[in-house]
This record gives sequence, C-alpha cells and structure tokens, in this order.
Amino acid sequence: MTGRPRKVAPLGIALDPAATVPLHRQIGEQIRRAILERRLAPGLKLPSSRLMAAELNCARGTVLAAIDQLVAEGYLVAQAGSGLSVAADLPDEMLVPSGVEERQEDRAMQAPVLSRRAVAALADDSPEEAVDGTPVAFPTGQPDRESFPFPLWAKLLEREWRQPAWTVAGAPHPFGHPRLRQAIAAYLGMARGFGCEPGAIVITMGVRQSLSLLARLVLDAGDAAWIEEPGFVGTREALASAEVQIAAVPVDASGFPLEAAMALAPRARLAVVAPSHQFPLGVVLSLQRRLALLSWAERVNGWIAEDDFDGEYRYAGRPLAPLRALDRNRRVAYLGSFSKLLFPALRLSYIVLPDALVPAAEKIMSDVTARASMLGQGALARFIADGHFAAHLRRTRLLYSIRQRALIDAARRHLDGLLQIAPDPGGMHLIARPHPDLASVFDDRPATAAAAATSLSVSPLSACYRDEPRVHGLILGYAATPEDTIEPAVAALASALRPLYKRPYAR
Amino acid sequence: MTGRPRKVAPLGIALDPAATVPLHRQIGEQIRRAILERRLAPGLKLPSSRLMAAELNCARGTVLAAIDQLVAEGYLVAQAGSGLSVAADLPDEMLVPSGVEERQEDRAMQAPVLSRRAVAALADDSPEEAVDGTPVAFPTGQPDRESFPFPLWAKLLEREWRQPAWTVAGAPHPFGHPRLRQAIAAYLGMARGFGCEPGAIVITMGVRQSLSLLARLVLDAGDAAWIEEPGFVGTREALASAEVQIAAVPVDASGFPLEAAMALAPRARLAVVAPSHQFPLGVVLSLQRRLALLSWAERVNGWIAEDDFDGEYRYAGRPLAPLRALDRNRRVAYLGSFSKLLFPALRLSYIVLPDALVPAAEKIMSDVTARASMLGQGALARFIADGHFAAHLRRTRLLYSIRQRALIDAARRHLDGLLQIAPDPGGMHLIARPHPDLASVFDDRPATAAAAATSLSVSPLSACYRDEPRVHGLILGYAATPEDTIEPAVAALASALRPLYKRPYAR
Repeated sequence: MTGRPRKVAPLGIALDPAATVPLHRQIGEQIRRAILERRLAPGLKLPSSRLMAAELNCARGTVLAAIDQLVAEGYLVAQAGSGLSVAADLPDEMLVPSGVEERQEDRAMQAPVLSRRAVAALADDSPEEAVDGTPVAFPTGQPDRESFPFPLWAKLLEREWRQPAWTVAGAPHPFGHPRLRQAIAAYLGMARGFGCEPGAIVITMGVRQSLSLLARLVLDAGDAAWIEEPGFVGTREALASAEVQIAAVPVDASGFPLEAAMALAPRARLAVVAPSHQFPLGVVLSLQRRLALLSWAERVNGWIAEDDFDGEYRYAGRPLAPLRALDRNRRVAYLGSFSKLLFPALRLSYIVLPDALVPAAEKIMSDVTARASMLGQGALARFIADGHFAAHLRRTRLLYSIRQRALIDAARRHLDGLLQIAPDPGGMHLIARPHPDLASVFDDRPATAAAAATSLSVSPLSACYRDEPRVHGLILGYAATPEDTIEPAVAALASALRPLYKRPYAR
Repeated sequence: MTGRPRKVAPLGIALDPAATVPLHRQIGEQIRRAILERRLAPGLKLPSSRLMAAELNCARGTVLAAIDQLVAEGYLVAQAGSGLSVAADLPDEMLVPSGVEERQEDRAMQAPVLSRRAVAALADDSPEEAVDGTPVAFPTGQPDRESFPFPLWAKLLEREWRQPAWTVAGAPHPFGHPRLRQAIAAYLGMARGFGCEPGAIVITMGVRQSLSLLARLVLDAGDAAWIEEPGFVGTREALASAEVQIAAVPVDASGFPLEAAMALAPRARLAVVAPSHQFPLGVVLSLQRRLALLSWAERVNGWIAEDDFDGEYRYAGRPLAPLRALDRNRRVAYLGSFSKLLFPALRLSYIVLPDALVPAAEKIMSDVTARASMLGQGALARFIADGHFAAHLRRTRLLYSIRQRALIDAARRHLDGLLQIAPDPGGMHLIARPHPDLASVFDDRPATAAAAATSLSVSPLSACYRDEPRVHGLILGYAATPEDTIEPAVAALASALRPLYKRPYAR
C-alpha cells in the first residue's frame, strides 16, 4: 500500500486511490488479510455493503465486487437474511495472530532456502556478463554496434509479421522457417562454393544446439569425439550434453593433426574442427590435412563437424574451400551462425546435415521444445535473399580489418616488452602472447582480472584449453571496438598489466 | 551443375551461365574435381589463363580468379616462367579414379550412419506434429488463429527494432527485457491481485524452463517433488531434467490433496500445482487446501510452483486469488505463459521467483545459453502496457466460451452413448469421457488414432498420467476450432469412433 490513505474504516481498511490496484481489490485483499490474521474472527458478522460503502466513501458496487469475490473464495459466507459473516471453516493453522507475519518472514529468511547447487552457483565468482550495455574494449565474439542496419531490419520484421502464415506463427517446422533455409542454401552456394538442399538445413539457437543435435544423430552415449585443443568451450559443453567422450587434440600450425588424433583416441567417429579459422588460434587447416581428414571419414564411416562461424571474415589471401565443398561421401556437417555476424540477441545459427541424417533429425527436433525463435527467421531470410547480408559482411570486413591493424599498431607502441600480437588473416580477435621474458611467469587469469578492473574485457587464452598444459595469453576481440578507442584501451591495458610484471629479468 | 552447358573445353569444363554459382567458382570447382579424380594428373602442366579464357569464352579475369583460388588452396602450383601445373603433393588416397564417387556414395549409404539413439528416434511412430498449417479440429493448447492482431504486433516490432538499446540487441539481461518484466509485474498486480518486483521475474522459453530453473534453485539432484496426477507432461520433463525425484499425486474434485501427498512422499520439498485450473482435469484447488498447502510450505520451508498458464480463461464464477497472493512467507513461485494465449511461435513464458531466490537465479541464468529470444520481448511489453493484452483476453474469453458451449451441444447431439462431455468453468479444452457402458472397454489411444485418420487432432487423457491406473478419455481443445466447424468435426469424430465400439453390451 503506497501513498496517503484516504480514510480509515472500522474494518481497518485504508484505500489508496493512487495505487494501480483497483479499489475493489484493495478492499478484498485487506478483508482477506484481516480474516487470515484473525482481526476478523471466524463467524463474525460484517456490516452491510451499503454501510461499508458509506464508511469507505466509495461506490456500493465497489464493495459488492470485493464481497462477491471473497464469498466465491470462501472467506465470507452470505446467508439470506442474516447477511455477511466470516467463514468458520478456515484451517486454524492459517489463522495466526496478526503481526506474526514479520516474524515468519524472518524465519523464512533464516531458513535454508537454496539447494546446494544454487549455493555453489552463488559462490562462483566468475565475472558476471555486462548487462548495462556500456561499451568496453575487446569483448570476444561481439560485432560492431553501429554497422547493423536496424531500421531496415525493423521494416523487414514488420513486413513479415503483418500477416504471417500459421506455419510460422502457429505450428513452425522443427527445422525452422522454410524461406530462411532456402536463403541459407543459396548463400552457401554463392559464398562458400557448395550446394545443399534447404531440407537438410536445421535452424538452431546456437553452435551448441547444432553440435549436440549432430552428436545425438551419429554418436551414442560413451562414444568418442575429437575436438581441437585449444578450442571453443561451447563445443565441449555441447558434446558433454550429448554424453559423448571428448578427446582434445592439440592443433599445430597446419590445424587439426589427424595422426595425433588417431593416437589419442583411435575409436573416435566424430571430428569437430574449424578449418577456415580455428578458434582461438586462427590457424587454417591445410589442404593436405583437409583431404586426409575427409578420407579418414570415408574409410571408417566417421563424421566431420565443420564449424565455420567466423570463416566469413578474411582480410588477406583467399579462404580455402570448406570441407563440405570437398565432401564426396556426405560425411561433413557444416555449422554456421548469424549471431556474431549481425547482433548477438538474434541467436540464430544453422547446421547443414548430411542428407542421410535428415529423417532422424526431424524425429529428434520435433521432440525438442527449446528451438530457435521464429520471430526473426522470416526477416533474416529476406535480409539474406535481398543481398543485405552480403553487403553487411563487405562493410564489416573492411571495418574489422582496419581495427585489427589499429590494434596491432597500438600494441607495438604500448605493450613493448609485455605482450606481443601477431596479425591474423581473418577473424574478429587477436591473441596477445607474453613477451618471451615473461612467458614463464605470465598468468592470464590475474591479467584478465586486472584488465577488468580498468573495465577492459579481455579473455584468458588458457580457458580455451581443456587439458594441461595450458598456454597463457589474452584474447582481444577488436570487432566491437571502434578504431579511435583502440589506442587508449591498449594503453590502459599496458598500465593495468605493468605492475603485475615489473622487472621480469630480476626473476 | 544445372541447365544446358554453354561450352565444353579440353579441360572438361562445362559452364552454366544460368547457375547462381559465379563462373569463376564453376571453373575452380571443376578443375579441383578433375584433379581429385585424377583426370588432371599430379604435375600436369595447364594451358595459360589466356588460352583457357578463350576456350571457355569468358573473361580472362574470371579464369585468373579461379586459378588464384586453386593456387591458394594448393591444388595448382605457379612457377615463374614455367606457368601453371597441378600440385604433386596431394595425398594419394584422395586421388581416386574418376567415377568411383558414385560407388563410394553407395558404400556410404550402406554403411552404418546413425547412432542407436537416432535409430530409436526413427522407429518412434508417435504422430509427427502437423507442420503444413492446415487447420484441424480440437488441437490442445492452441489459440484461435484469427483473433491475434498481427498488423498491430508487426508495428510494435518495427517500433522496437528501429533503434534498439544494446542491452536488448547486444548484451541482454539473463532475466530478459526489463520493460517486459515491468509490464508483467503491473499486469499481475491488476489482473491477478498480487504485487511483485519486476526484478524477481525471469522471462523463459516455456513452462519447462521456468520449472527447471526453480527446481535447480531449491532442490538438489535426488530430492523429491510432488506433481499432480494426471498433469502436464512438460512438468515431468522439466523436473527430470533437473534430476528431481517425482511423486505423482492423484488429484480429486478439490484439487491437489496435501495429506495424500505427504503419505506418498513425506520428504518432498516442492509442490508443483495448477490451482486455478488444473491440467487436464480443470478442477480448482479449494481455499482450504490452498491455505493448508501454504502452511505446509511455511512449516517445512517447502516451495510451491503455481502453474497458472490458462488461469486467464474463466467463463463462470470468479477466479480464486492465486496462491502467490496469499503467500506471506515467500514460498510460492508463480508461472505464467503467453504462447498459448497469443500465438505459439512467440515462445515466451515467465516465472515470478520468491525474492530470496533471485541472486542465485541470476548466476544460474547467466550460464544458460538457451534463453527466451529478445526479438519479441519489447513488442510484447508494449502490447501489455498499452492494454492490448487485456483486450485480447476479453475478446478470446468470449469467443472460447461460445466454442465450449458449441462443443458441448454438438457432443450431446452426436456422441450419445459414446462419449460424455461435462462443461468446465474455464480453460481451452474439455475432456470427453466414455459412456458408462463403454468405460470398461474404451482405450483412448486407438480412439485418438481413429480420429487422426479423419484428420481430427484429439489427445489421449491416459497420456497425462505418469503411473497406473490411467483414466481414459479424449482431450478436445476448442479454442482453435471455429464455431461453425465444431459440429461437423464432432459428427466426424462420432463416425470415426462408432466402428470401434459396436454393441458394447455384447461384450
């Protein structure tokens, strides 16, 4: 109850005309409470509605509405003639002396309220995700904030939802919007050089869902899969959710090494790789290894998950053809995502399945209730089909290449003797590695914390490793960091880190 | 390659100017394939780009683009002076005689391609969900198709996405859109008679996610929870996903019976109930039982999940106050959903948490990547705040009450001696129970199949039971079934079922 009460009646009712809660509810609520707190005893007769209305200085209809409700709820009993009285049959335990409420609240507060797992979650001090929206430098996997044409996007949404088909608004296909799947198939043919059936494309909420679907299709609980070490943590989570055994295979300068993988887990039947731009190292899988991996899949009837999520961004040289484009035996599933390319809240990714997996995937997806939202799928289909997607990639490709350049220059000026950053022909981030003198002492977790303390969002490279030994370094995303803010941010990073690593030669 | 080839060159390249794939990609792809299939042997010299361009009758730049790509990929080697040649260092295993491709495909087809769980999914013959969008009578949990004001919705979406804040488009709060949470809090205060902090509201993808969040907050793996028997299958799935032990408590005419629950699982600390309109039976939890359940929660520091998903639809009498409105000790979480009220693809639900659970919920939700989409949340906030939601409920409430009436009348006319339908003061469905003569022989699964064969979508009541004994009956959703189609549909149902139950007295 807020504001100044208008009137106090014998029943102890105080009305607040300013409150959003209508008057008849205020009356009903307070009588109910009075009954529960025994201020109105069981069996007690109430004044007539006319009298109450007069006392409360409100319309009689308002009082009647409250009374009808309380009668319907069983708090009040209306006898013909003898009028209204408080019900006599309420459980005694609920009829507690008034004022007890506060004490009970105290008790509830002291009482054990959380599960052990909830308490554990509370104890976890990993940094909260920023939700205030203020830009910070170097977040990983975030696109530029200004480039996406939201006004156009808004128009496309409006156009899509004016008169949606029931197959969109009511009973969507478990694989997603048919027009979006067509648009993706056409785009992949143009931009990535392979053809596929729209019917083999599943729209998902993210790479995790794409991968866990694939894992369920081709592996049983306990089966083994290869992942890249270091790699994207979501890959591990997705395979774990599908109860798959993970073998983390260290990548080298040519990418995923098949021989090492076979030595590590010979029985693995799924390889999860990012051939075009490995995350986080950025290496490209060599042609020889691509061909070798494909022939492995063919030989053992194995499967390859090709994660191409930032293959779109390449600033130097030319992208190699995706594995899927070389796949003559339908062993490759191709994974893509729009969220990091357009805007994170879009939450739309996709997987191009080998045709043989489609019927089982339809069964599995129709049992999945947590699917990609349909709300943006039609608009995204138009965005792609009308060429806006390709245009957006061209714009941001230029923008990001400039930002990468700026980051490298700034690092050279400010991080000398501290961190070294090598250019990367693609992607949306760079890795800053400790200067050789620091390599032995550099720990990327305190470094990340120190950066966070000056509101810089860098990520520890070591967190991308599943097993020891973990290489330490800082992942700096530059895509969401405007050029003019890069140099000051790098300078701030330097002054945040220098105190941690004074005089390394003295050690 | 589709369409008629324009020209065939010595290299065996056929270009299709009509194809969506640009010419330089067509050239590159075919040379790559020719190399992989050994039609172009390792080390072989290629004609000059000028010559190839002439033969293919295309611009030299087009050929050069293709060649650069193949050189970048390592298929071709360019030596100063000696021109272009096929790389010599491709793994032999990939250099297979041409034409083998088909045979390999056959092999891949014969090869075991699916996991055992995928094969099991394929074998599951439970009816596919209808995705063609053609209306069928009596689907459960579907709203009317015509009532929702999509043009208005489209305008609201456009308005929200013209210039979204980054806290919406980029880094959303793990609990969802702040304005939507405010709008829900205000709506609940008005319509359901209890106040709550917007900060305690979590926007979810559905009742499943709401419940599994709550279960993780208050129960550990192995802890016990009470659910209603029969009940919503999603409740069981959600609790199972949180590794909670389920005790299914048979409901009676007054709803969830606490005494029976205590006898069944005395250690349970969470009760999942639908007090306003139990699913599927439609019974209302009596006031005495509401108060008793609340005092149980207070006594043992237990928790109550109040599922109110179709509490909005009430055609006779008045709704009782939600448990949450009587909850003086913050033991009740209130669950609501918009998908069934507005349109299914919206996929937006919410849970109002007891305040004490909010901090841990923030930790847990910030680790959850599968969250409710932000795309519709701002528009829904306006839809509610501007009164469109309340107006939509008023319109559909009238519509649905008429449809329920029509269904009952039609049943009386056509299902005599077969099925009996009693009215329900609320909800979006009715239960058709077998005539007493049939009770012993009626099985709702073949009945459902027979109805489906005449394209009627009814659901078996027995599927809502977790344990034996299962009561049989048919659940008929009427909300999505226009009045004029109800009588013919009921007639069709009758003629679909009569053959199954000829002369029951003969048995």
